[in-house]
Amino acid sequence: MQIVTKTIKISTKGNPDLINITDEVVDILNTSKLKKGSLTVFVVGSTAAITTFEYEPGLRRDVQDFFEKLIPSNKNYHHDATWGDANGFSHLRASLQGPSLAVPFDNGKILLGTWQQIVLAEFDNRSREREVVVQVIGE
Amino acid sequence: MQIVTKTIKISTKGNPDLINITDEVVDILNTSKLKKGSLTVFVVGSTAAITTFEYEPGLRRDVQDFFEKLIPSNKNYHHDATWGDANGFSHLRASLQGPSLAVPFDNGKILLGTWQQIVLAEFDNRSREREVVVQVIGE
Amino acid sequence: MQIVTKTIKISTKGNPDLINITDEVVDILNTSKLKKGSLTVFVVGSTAAITTFEYEPGLRRDVQDFFEKLIPSNKNYHHDATWGDANGFSHLRASLQGPSLAVPFDNGKILLGTWQQIVLAEFDNRSREREVVVQVIGE
Repeated sequence: MQIVTKTIKISTKGNPDLINITDEVVDILNTSKLKKGSLTVFVVGSTAAITTFEYEPGLRRDVQDFFEKLIPSNKNYHHDATWGDANGFSHLRASLQGPSLAVPFDNGKILLGTWQQIVLAEFDNRSREREVVVQVIGE
Repeated sequence: MQIVTKTIKISTKGNPDLINITDEVVDILNTSKLKKGSLTVFVVGSTAAITTFEYEPGLRRDVQDFFEKLIPSNKNYHHDATWGDANGFSHLRASLQGPSLAVPFDNGKILLGTWQQIVLAEFDNRSREREVVVQVIGE
Repeated sequence: MQIVTKTIKISTKGNPDLINITDEVVDILNTSKLKKGSLTVFVVGSTAAITTFEYEPGLRRDVQDFFEKLIPSNKNYHHDATWGDANGFSHLRASLQGPSLAVPFDNGKILLGTWQQIVLAEFDNRSREREVVVQVIGE
């Protein structure tokens, strides 16, 4: 049993940037040479999240519309008064969606569906340099 | 330390089918003979999700009502135009709820609460043959 | 590779109590002496959840306001009729947010962001004695 921990660095454009990181995650799995086990994808920070969806332009807009309606970016939040950075909506969205995803692999293949991509959701109200930790545990 | 990976196959009736898979997950844990560690439950595909709740008829209706109100099935979504399959709502619900759940076990017992069942949530707008991967890592 | 499983016991005040458990989780990691791997934080029970956010008073209120608006505590739910305990909203919130969080660590350090705390969200409508399982897998 082995543990491989790598970090993907990604420049985002700020909310509502949705970035497909499946290829980068699979590259790390392939390089690890591990054949069965689980990988954890974890975004460091409190204004971004990890999710999975079919990465195509229509659904990207749907996801963006959904979050804008559920947790509007033009509303005032108590958090905004704390730091004056007006990104309360970013924190709320990130907390709800969550920073972490576990995906099993077997026979050296990640067990995602064909239309199930791993996506970094940038919710912050400015561009960011993101670190996504990919940790592979297996043999 | 060992890794056991099994797949549960489940025929669903389409949205809003909620299926209790706790017994199947526990069976896999018991068969693995592993005594301590963690198991990952992961549904393959982008229109279903894994969650936990008290699996009783009243709460099942509440969960169904909640998703229908939050992400209505009779609304139009951009994704619907991409494939013409009118299941944009299914994708959005699945992305929000998430495909993956990690549960620890110890002394050979899964550490769920008494009223905390593992549930496959089918959001797609038609019946599906689902694959749920259960991976046990431990010793 | 080793597995360390510990339980944190926490007295909550009932909904909408939000408790920062990052220090307790890091203590368990430090005591384990493991240097690289992943830890799972899992709350036992179906009316509480685990999330991450910047733990400051403004954002705590935002999270509380968000859940109160999305899944009101003063509404009637089908679940309430099942047990007569009027906490249908607690179950719905817990199911949506989820009981489980995986966080990687490396060089003996948990890979959380500076403003990314691990939070136990108590949604039940009364005070509870909670058990949060922290399981460290690594070497």
